[in-house]
Amino acid sequence: MINKNIINIIIKKKNKGELTYDEIKYTVDNFIGGEVKDYQMSSLLMAIVLNGMTDEETFNLTKIMLDSGDKLDLSNINGIKVDKHSTGGVGDKTTLVVAPLVAACGVPIAKMSGRGLGYTGGTIDKLESISGFNTSITEEEFIKEVNDIGIALVSQTGNLVPADKKIYALRDVTGTTESIPLIASSIMSKKLASGADKIVLDVKVGKGAFMKNITDARKLSKTMISIGKKFNKEIVALITNMNYPLGYTIGNALEVKEAIDTLNGNGEERFTKLCLTLASYMVSLGKGISLEDSLDMVVEKLNNKEGLKKFFELIKAQGGDVNNIEIANKKIALKSKNNGYITDIDVIKLAKFANSLGAGRNKKDDIINHKVGIILNKKVNDEVRIDDTLLYVVCDNDIDIDKLYDAFTISNKNIEEVKIVYDIIK
Amino acid sequence: MINKNIINIIIKKKNKGELTYDEIKYTVDNFIGGEVKDYQMSSLLMAIVLNGMTDEETFNLTKIMLDSGDKLDLSNINGIKVDKHSTGGVGDKTTLVVAPLVAACGVPIAKMSGRGLGYTGGTIDKLESISGFNTSITEEEFIKEVNDIGIALVSQTGNLVPADKKIYALRDVTGTTESIPLIASSIMSKKLASGADKIVLDVKVGKGAFMKNITDARKLSKTMISIGKKFNKEIVALITNMNYPLGYTIGNALEVKEAIDTLNGNGEERFTKLCLTLASYMVSLGKGISLEDSLDMVVEKLNNKEGLKKFFELIKAQGGDVNNIEIANKKIALKSKNNGYITDIDVIKLAKFANSLGAGRNKKDDIINHKVGIILNKKVNDEVRIDDTLLYVVCDNDIDIDKLYDAFTISNKNIEEVKIVYDIIK
Repeated sequence: MINKNIINIIIKKKNKGELTYDEIKYTVDNFIGGEVKDYQMSSLLMAIVLNGMTDEETFNLTKIMLDSGDKLDLSNINGIKVDKHSTGGVGDKTTLVVAPLVAACGVPIAKMSGRGLGYTGGTIDKLESISGFNTSITEEEFIKEVNDIGIALVSQTGNLVPADKKIYALRDVTGTTESIPLIASSIMSKKLASGADKIVLDVKVGKGAFMKNITDARKLSKTMISIGKKFNKEIVALITNMNYPLGYTIGNALEVKEAIDTLNGNGEERFTKLCLTLASYMVSLGKGISLEDSLDMVVEKLNNKEGLKKFFELIKAQGGDVNNIEIANKKIALKSKNNGYITDIDVIKLAKFANSLGAGRNKKDDIINHKVGIILNKKVNDEVRIDDTLLYVVCDNDIDIDKLYDAFTISNKNIEEVKIVYDIIK
Repeated sequence: MINKNIINIIIKKKNKGELTYDEIKYTVDNFIGGEVKDYQMSSLLMAIVLNGMTDEETFNLTKIMLDSGDKLDLSNINGIKVDKHSTGGVGDKTTLVVAPLVAACGVPIAKMSGRGLGYTGGTIDKLESISGFNTSITEEEFIKEVNDIGIALVSQTGNLVPADKKIYALRDVTGTTESIPLIASSIMSKKLASGADKIVLDVKVGKGAFMKNITDARKLSKTMISIGKKFNKEIVALITNMNYPLGYTIGNALEVKEAIDTLNGNGEERFTKLCLTLASYMVSLGKGISLEDSLDMVVEKLNNKEGLKKFFELIKAQGGDVNNIEIANKKIALKSKNNGYITDIDVIKLAKFANSLGAGRNKKDDIINHKVGIILNKKVNDEVRIDDTLLYVVCDNDIDIDKLYDAFTISNKNIEEVKIVYDIIK
C-alpha cells in the first residue's frame, strides 16, 4: 500500500505549508524505520531546500532528531562544559589548538568530533595520524579522562542522533546540503546530544565553506542561536573567513604537526588569531569572566606552553605517541613563475588536489592516507619572486604538480588586509 | 564512487539553471540504467516541480523519453491517424464513445490506452469488463484490425517510452506529479511514440482533475501544442469541465454500459456534448474538412447508430461478448433528505468511494473489480425532493452508504448553466 501520509506531507511543503511537530516526527521516525523511502525523503528535502522552514519547524526538526538517539550525560564532570563546532573548512585544525588552550585555562573539554566526508579529513582523522591514538574509547573512559586531565577528544560514542546521520548521508548525494534550516538542525541536534552546557560556533564563510556569503552565515548563526535558546543553551557564533586555506597545511598528519607548531608559538598569524579568539570566547563562557580577561589567560597559556603541554597530555592519555607522526617521504616544490603579490589562493583547487592524493574521502568507507597533503610556503598578500617556492606537495610517489600553479593569482599590487573574524553573533 | 555528475545537475536545477540536452539525456539514460538512483531522481524532480523547465528543456525531455523505447509504426494504415488523449477524470468513458463515432466517419482509430492508477480504472480496464475482450494483441493484429474495421483499442504494445514509465512511477509516490513540464513531456512522449499524425487533447480542469484552474490548463495545453509543433504534429486541445462526474456512472462495467447507451442516443446531455465536440475535432483533423461539416457527420453517425455498430464491431473483433458485461447484484439507493437543487456533487468523494468498492487501483498490481461502482440518478442543477434517489451504489455486499450524502450540496436556488467545454486551443 502506498504511504499516503508522507506524500501529503511532501505536497504540503511543496506548497509552502508549515509542517507540524507531528508531521515532522512522523517523517523522521518512519524514515529511520524504513517506511518512508529514501526517494520520498529526498523529494521532501529538496522541497525544504527550496521553500525553507520556519523557526518553529527548524526547532521541531532539531528536537525530533535529538530525541532519535542517545544523549551524552556529562553531569559527572565538574564545571561548565563548553563545546565548539566548526561548520567545516579546508585545513581546519582549529580544534587541535583551541581545545588544549581552553583546557589549560581550566575549562573542561569533553569533545566529540567527526570524521571527514569531503575534500579532507575531520578532527578525528587528524588525531588518528598520531600513532596509537585511540579515538574510540567508552563513555566511562571519556568522562574519567576529562575529570583526570581536563580534556578528551573522541569520535562519536553511543548512538547519537541516528536520524541526522541517515538524513545527512542522503542530503550528501541528492544536492540538498545547502539549506540553512537543514544545516542548523543537523549541527544543533548533534551538539545538543553531546551534552555541553554552552557552545561556541565557528561559522565559516567564503569559497572554501558551505556558506558563500556573510548574509547567509549570519542567518545560519541566528537560526542556531535561536534553537539553542529554546534548549536553554548559551551560544556564541563567530563568522570567520574561509576564502583561503587555514594556516599552512592541508592533510591530516601535516595539520597535527602544524597544530603543535602553533601551540609552540610558531603558528601562522591569521590562524593563530582565529584560535585565540575562539578559545577566549570559550573560556569566557566557561568561567563566566570577561572576554578581555579570557584572552589574556589564553595568550598566557600559549606563551608559557601550557596549551602545548595539555595537547601532549591528551595524546598520551589516549595512547598516542607524539614522536611518531608519519609523513610521506616525497616533498615536491611548486615554484613561482611570476614576480608580484599573491592576491588569491584557490582553496577548493588545493583541497581537491589533497583529496586526489588520498587525504580525504569520497565515500564513507574510503581509507584515508594520513601522511599526504600540501604545505603552503606563501600565503595571501605575501610577495613572491620567480622561483620562490609557493607550496610543497607531500606524497608517496613522484607526481606532476604543475597544474597546481593555477591555484595562485599573482598580481602587481597586494589586496587589502585579510580579516579572519568577520563578526560575532550572540 | 559517488556520481558527481547527477549531483551537479540537481544543484544546477535547484539554482534555477537551464539543463542542457546532454544533461537531461545523461540523467534519463542513467536513471533507466540504474546509475542515477531513485532518491537522486526524486530530488531533481522536486527541483523541477518548484523551479520549472523552459520550453527547450521540456522539448528535450520529451524527445529523450520518446527515444528511450520503441515507436509504433502506423504507416501501413491508410489515411491520417488521429489520436485522442484525456488528462484523466472521474467517470471518463469518453474514448468508448468518441473512438467508434470517429471510426464510423472513416477516420482510422489505432489507439493505445492505459490502465488506471488512482481512483478508477482506465479505458483498458473498462474494456476488460466486457467478457472475452482482449486488449493485448500483437502489433500486426492491431494494424490488421484497423485496416479491416477502421478501429482497434489496445493496451500498450511494445516497449514504448520506458523512461516515462519509470519516472512516472517515482513521481506518483514522491509528491511530484503536479508540474506542467513534467505532465506535458509525459503525455507527449507517449502520444508521439504511439505513431498518430494528429492529436486531440482533452485537458480536464476542476476538482476531479490534475489541473485545478483554467490558467494552468491553458498553460499545459500550450506547452503540449508547442512540443507537438516541433515534431510536426498538429494538435488541438479542448479544455473541459471536470468539476463533476462525467455522465451518470463511475465504475468499469457500468461505464461501458453507459457508453453503449450514449451511442444509442440516450446519453447524459453534457457528456454527449463533450463526446460530439471531441469527435468532430478529430474528424475535422483526420479528413481535413470544416468543423461544422465534421460535427454534422458525427451527429449523423450518432443518430443512425453507425457509431454504436462500430463499437459492437470493435468488441467482436477483439473477442468480446457485448451481451456478457457483468454487473454486481446489489443496488443500494441513496435518498435525498432535502428539497432543493443540487448545486454541487463532490466528484472526489464519489471517486474515493468507488475506489473503496474495488473499482480502481491503489497500487500497480491491485486487481480491479469491474462489476462495482456508482450510478448517479441526479446531476448538478437537477431539482430534487425528499426521498428522491440521488444515486445507486452497485456492489457485492450490503454496505452503509449514508456518508455519501455529504457528497451532495442541495440549495434553494440552482447555479448557472454548467459549461462542459471551456476553451479550444490550437
